[in-house]
Amino acid sequence: MTITITAFDRSPDGGKGLARDVRVRWALEEAGLPYDVRLVSFQAMKEPAHLALHPFGQIPTYEEGDLTLFETGAIVLHIGHRHPGLLPDDANARSRAVSWMFAAVNTLEPPILELTMARLFERDQPGYATRLPTLEARVRTRLHQLSERLGDADWLDGAFSAGDLMMVHVLLRLRSTGLLDELPRVAAYVARGEARPAYRRAFAAQLAVNTRPPAAN
Amino acid sequence: MTITITAFDRSPDGGKGLARDVRVRWALEEAGLPYDVRLVSFQAMKEPAHLALHPFGQIPTYEEGDLTLFETGAIVLHIGHRHPGLLPDDANARSRAVSWMFAAVNTLEPPILELTMARLFERDQPGYATRLPTLEARVRTRLHQLSERLGDADWLDGAFSAGDLMMVHVLLRLRSTGLLDELPRVAAYVARGEARPAYRRAFAAQLAVNTRPPAAN
Repeated sequence: MTITITAFDRSPDGGKGLARDVRVRWALEEAGLPYDVRLVSFQAMKEPAHLALHPFGQIPTYEEGDLTLFETGAIVLHIGHRHPGLLPDDANARSRAVSWMFAAVNTLEPPILELTMARLFERDQPGYATRLPTLEARVRTRLHQLSERLGDADWLDGAFSAGDLMMVHVLLRLRSTGLLDELPRVAAYVARGEARPAYRRAFAAQLAVNTRPPAAN
Repeated sequence: MTITITAFDRSPDGGKGLARDVRVRWALEEAGLPYDVRLVSFQAMKEPAHLALHPFGQIPTYEEGDLTLFETGAIVLHIGHRHPGLLPDDANARSRAVSWMFAAVNTLEPPILELTMARLFERDQPGYATRLPTLEARVRTRLHQLSERLGDADWLDGAFSAGDLMMVHVLLRLRSTGLLDELPRVAAYVARGEARPAYRRAFAAQLAVNTRPPAAN
């Protein structure tokens, strides 16, 4: 059955690979599944046709026959439940991998996004100088805790899993802040994720979309 | 096998039921499972024994035999996969319920928490008057989108599921802001969640903990 995902027609990051479709591309590459991509403009994302797929007007979405999914965590988990390569076989280990998936999007990503968004959009606003150290401290706390848990292991819980996939991609948002470099174990963990052939194919695919020449009219 | 969860020794909300252990208590009640609760002080949450269960030093955790889990979404999903009452039988509907679980914690909860935390802790800080309308507008956008998708339905996708459980509990954080009252469909949806016997039992259990008299020494 053909799998179709949506992605930004032009990602705001210009091809740095931070948009969430990369998580789904990466998961599909780990599972060895071919997929089609439908590119969606910012305007089209807010129109009824796309809102029928994604109630919050975002990307990515996932279509496979009758099924439509949204939220990268749910899409990655769906793929992982149906194909090898993303989740352990053991039932308990599988539940633990899901803990790391939720930790990535609910415990790490919110303070990371708040920091990176403030750096982008609040520099000229009153209170920025007060807020920045607070936002950085919150992220540092989480990175230290992650580093402690990781220790000398390659991945968060045994073999690479969807938990690592989600965590590594959330952490990539920090590259421009320099905070990753303060934690060598976390930086090495992110680098291991980026070195995976499946990630490299996913990254290259989004780069090709986001650096293509403008369409001739 | 005995299930043990952790919860705040004293919740910062004094028994309003907003701490995340309520999500797990509610899921266990929907599934009809007995459970034990171990109360953890703020100090103990940061100590090695608790960090071994939860790498980010939070509550709740979930222990069942050899298995330890953290992150409410992962715990609720684990319960839902093993017991009836939280996830549909149909595989596609099950994946769609997981979409709503991730939407609750990754799309709704971050802007809601940012708003409610700012209202609590940033009132006297420079920039608050500028930031507040921005934070409120972000939450309103999500609530409008949720209301549109909900329409006249009782629940987000067919029968009540773990997706509704997570979403309703995330939305309860907004009670003190008044924003829920602007969207009658969303307010009625939250009220339907609160009216479920399983939720009422979960709420009562946390209330008993958080309003108990101080221990005599």
